[in-house]
Amino acid sequence: MRIHIPTRLRWSDLDAYGHVNNAQMFGLLEEARIHAFWEGDNAEGDAPPTRIFQGGPTADTFTLIAHQEIEYLAPIAYQRDPLDLELWIGRLGGASMEVCYEVWSPVGETPRVLFTRATTTIVLVDAATMKPRRIRDDEREAVAPYLGDMIEFGKK
Amino acid sequence: MRIHIPTRLRWSDLDAYGHVNNAQMFGLLEEARIHAFWEGDNAEGDAPPTRIFQGGPTADTFTLIAHQEIEYLAPIAYQRDPLDLELWIGRLGGASMEVCYEVWSPVGETPRVLFTRATTTIVLVDAATMKPRRIRDDEREAVAPYLGDMIEFGKK
Amino acid sequence: MRIHIPTRLRWSDLDAYGHVNNAQMFGLLEEARIHAFWEGDNAEGDAPPTRIFQGGPTADTFTLIAHQEIEYLAPIAYQRDPLDLELWIGRLGGASMEVCYEVWSPVGETPRVLFTRATTTIVLVDAATMKPRRIRDDEREAVAPYLGDMIEFGKK
Amino acid sequence: MRIHIPTRLRWSDLDAYGHVNNAQMFGLLEEARIHAFWEGDNAEGDAPPTRIFQGGPTADTFTLIAHQEIEYLAPIAYQRDPLDLELWIGRLGGASMEVCYEVWSPVGETPRVLFTRATTTIVLVDAATMKPRRIRDDEREAVAPYLGDMIEFGKK
Repeated sequence: MRIHIPTRLRWSDLDAYGHVNNAQMFGLLEEARIHAFWEGDNAEGDAPPTRIFQGGPTADTFTLIAHQEIEYLAPIAYQRDPLDLELWIGRLGGASMEVCYEVWSPVGETPRVLFTRATTTIVLVDAATMKPRRIRDDEREAVAPYLGDMIEFGKK
Repeated sequence: MRIHIPTRLRWSDLDAYGHVNNAQMFGLLEEARIHAFWEGDNAEGDAPPTRIFQGGPTADTFTLIAHQEIEYLAPIAYQRDPLDLELWIGRLGGASMEVCYEVWSPVGETPRVLFTRATTTIVLVDAATMKPRRIRDDEREAVAPYLGDMIEFGKK
Repeated sequence: MRIHIPTRLRWSDLDAYGHVNNAQMFGLLEEARIHAFWEGDNAEGDAPPTRIFQGGPTADTFTLIAHQEIEYLAPIAYQRDPLDLELWIGRLGGASMEVCYEVWSPVGETPRVLFTRATTTIVLVDAATMKPRRIRDDEREAVAPYLGDMIEFGKK
Repeated sequence: MRIHIPTRLRWSDLDAYGHVNNAQMFGLLEEARIHAFWEGDNAEGDAPPTRIFQGGPTADTFTLIAHQEIEYLAPIAYQRDPLDLELWIGRLGGASMEVCYEVWSPVGETPRVLFTRATTTIVLVDAATMKPRRIRDDEREAVAPYLGDMIEFGKK
């Protein structure tokens, strides 16, 4: 099972080649990750059940990023409809988890195109002590339905 | 009459003060302007009738930005629901027009908060000759319903 | 007398038109303003005497931006050498000041090209009370040599 | 042997946590990569001998990014002096190469801090046919002195 986060491009995500810039892609992943996992609702009522982690500088727990890996499969042109970002958990450790992403063309377009695959290693850190803290049972239960295979990146 | 463009923040629009950065604000205005005026539809079917100007590097007419002015009235914190950007035309010249903006809190929130007011002067330029070209009658008709008063900025 | 701040472009400042994006321009102005006015030295030893205002989220005084105005005179292509940003004070009020900018081609290039002119209204705000606070005498003295004419923008 | 590219932060590279944003980090790597490998000189005369690849949308050969990997070792606060980015070639293939990076604290600061390690897989593509093209002998010779070990990332 995967979390689907519709994620809009901005014109300014393009660089002078006319495609989404390689660095901006991480901004899109970050945006989808926040919509998937940070607690809090929005008025549009489409909150996934994985919105349980605190976010922002005033949280008790920080979600630090330790590692990222990405594979660019096809260039992304500007488009108005939101890209279909699929997220799931590739590994659930003691104090860390691996978020996996596939970036697909907008829902409804045919054929579907897979643009990018990526992973982000997140470590939960106690904001007071700045030490890693264990993922709690309620947190494990919330993300468990979205556990899936780790991405195998093409050999370089 | 005004064009309403719901415009989402990204977490990365904030700077280290925890509010939307002054320069990023122009990125949000650009995004709303593109959704209001660049031709082409999207699958969500909410295209305003002012989507008549070509956009992007392959267009016959470029819409160059000659001047911008902005007034910041209140800091903008991160929020999930899209800001309510209102756009209208403050002046319609021979080859140029003045786009006016008000940036409001998300629809449904009370009280409504006006965060920012701004204007952008756009000049239509023939891509072949790079000379200004007249706004055509069909273009005038499309934007005419959205003509309104120019913004009077507070004295500095 | 003007403060000269050499300011480098980044490749990612360009948009799909192949020129510096209109919104990114404000990021360049911000960067030059910080190098001109925020206190603290750097190892390269080229600190202007106007580096007297505290910056960043932990300062006692915030330098809020109330208003900005900009005129784009020529498109800026990617270039390696730093642009020559000239800054001066166009107006020095009780609790606010007007920073003026001219963005020129890199030092040594001929002919010199003026790309952009802009102004930023800065208000000094006490971080504890969030009320404007008066510019102190030592602050006035530091910026006084750089007082000059306000920019007259072309009529729209 | 490594290529040293002094790379300045911008204030806007920070996010609301007050540190360089994880996605912005890739913008810094891109900037250093361009200064290390794109052909063309600058007036400051510090061009490394590896500046031999064409860059930008009008080049005959595009340098596409196929894969990136990054490990964040310590958060980066705002600082005026340029970070010391070290670049080398971890693998030189038929039509592709692996650029390795270490992001260090500014030259002269003690103790030196290693903030980030990363790799980018670049594929040379013929702009006319959009097929990979072989790295030429003169290109191999220019980068050969900077061949070194591939980065071994910490296990996740």
